[in-house]
Amino acid sequence: MKVEERLKELGVKLPEPAKPVAAYIPCVRTGNLVFISGQDCRINGELRYKGKVGENVTEEEAYEAAKIAAINLLAILKSAIGDLDKVKKIVNLHGYVNSAKGFARQPMVINGASEFLVEVLGDKGKHSRCALSCNELPFDTPVEVEMIVEVED
Amino acid sequence: MKVEERLKELGVKLPEPAKPVAAYIPCVRTGNLVFISGQDCRINGELRYKGKVGENVTEEEAYEAAKIAAINLLAILKSAIGDLDKVKKIVNLHGYVNSAKGFARQPMVINGASEFLVEVLGDKGKHSRCALSCNELPFDTPVEVEMIVEVED
Amino acid sequence: MKVEERLKELGVKLPEPAKPVAAYIPCVRTGNLVFISGQDCRINGELRYKGKVGENVTEEEAYEAAKIAAINLLAILKSAIGDLDKVKKIVNLHGYVNSAKGFARQPMVINGASEFLVEVLGDKGKHSRCALSCNELPFDTPVEVEMIVEVED
Repeated sequence: MKVEERLKELGVKLPEPAKPVAAYIPCVRTGNLVFISGQDCRINGELRYKGKVGENVTEEEAYEAAKIAAINLLAILKSAIGDLDKVKKIVNLHGYVNSAKGFARQPMVINGASEFLVEVLGDKGKHSRCALSCNELPFDTPVEVEMIVEVED
Repeated sequence: MKVEERLKELGVKLPEPAKPVAAYIPCVRTGNLVFISGQDCRINGELRYKGKVGENVTEEEAYEAAKIAAINLLAILKSAIGDLDKVKKIVNLHGYVNSAKGFARQPMVINGASEFLVEVLGDKGKHSRCALSCNELPFDTPVEVEMIVEVED
Repeated sequence: MKVEERLKELGVKLPEPAKPVAAYIPCVRTGNLVFISGQDCRINGELRYKGKVGENVTEEEAYEAAKIAAINLLAILKSAIGDLDKVKKIVNLHGYVNSAKGFARQPMVINGASEFLVEVLGDKGKHSRCALSCNELPFDTPVEVEMIVEVED
């Protein structure tokens, strides 16, 4: 349970995995890949931040929102595979930033998720990525993140 | 042919698979995964709805548009694998909503695709998902949906 | 080295693979699939075009930007697998267009990437695809493209 010890060192407690807000499920496994549904910056069911980055949410807050989304993704992954030491690698991550007009620093925001995953998982946490902008996001979350993970048999 | 019977019960007739509108193909299989190209709300080659949700397209119409996109995805899948009973599971779905400023109910719109897939395929239709917003979409469709499906050998 | 000869015929010289601009890596392989991080229209570290398509970037320029992104994707792929003849097929491509209000011809823009891949790889280059719009993109690139590739063992 090294990954969980690392989380404890970092002061991160995984929450109960979020219940889907609509007609889908938290994740699906196919072969050794787990596809996890997009997560926002919900803590105990409430969005920690709301709004557009570059308008009423700062880049620093959005970085934190991306980290919260990554924590929510790990919570779902743990509930699916039981033990986070079974992670072989984070394969791919998509980060979507609810961006005000003229905000073009999406990569710096999504680093909140990416850097956290590397902090927790080391080299296994290094992933391919696409950081994107949306003009709106569900329920006005500033950030949404999804990922694909390779796990052991 | 249980899935096709279920479609008949639901009164859904799969159309001819849509021809790509540009330089790509309808789907690609790799191993047991089929990646299907993004589909819009075209019926017989014409978009059933046009415009932005929350502006000139209602949430109810967009829900219907998402269902039409899901029907178009199934039509392509059937032409690729021959028999929809070979579906093992819908792995992942991305739904993109052409959203007016301030519209943040993308998950409810994309439920039009998600609920239809579960209605047709039962547990095999339950998928991981990301519901997103775009400021525009190709040819002014209100909704675009793509998916990844695991199929039998 | 047929693919590389074809690139030479087309007058395309693959650049050094771009260094990630943030906390991620250029690509990740899982089984026979390579997921490549989103690429923009950078040449020698500088964006060739900047801005929104339909505003200060023309459709023709954006088509060219999509082609440059595809070249950057191939450069990363080559550095990962050594020899582009090991490509079995381009499985999936996502193209994101930084679109001005009212611009709805994303598919024509992303053809710049898609047609180039088919020109280079022939049938192996034919892919499933989703062409999308974003209200902004990182560092104001007009186009970002990512892809998933199946490679030989």
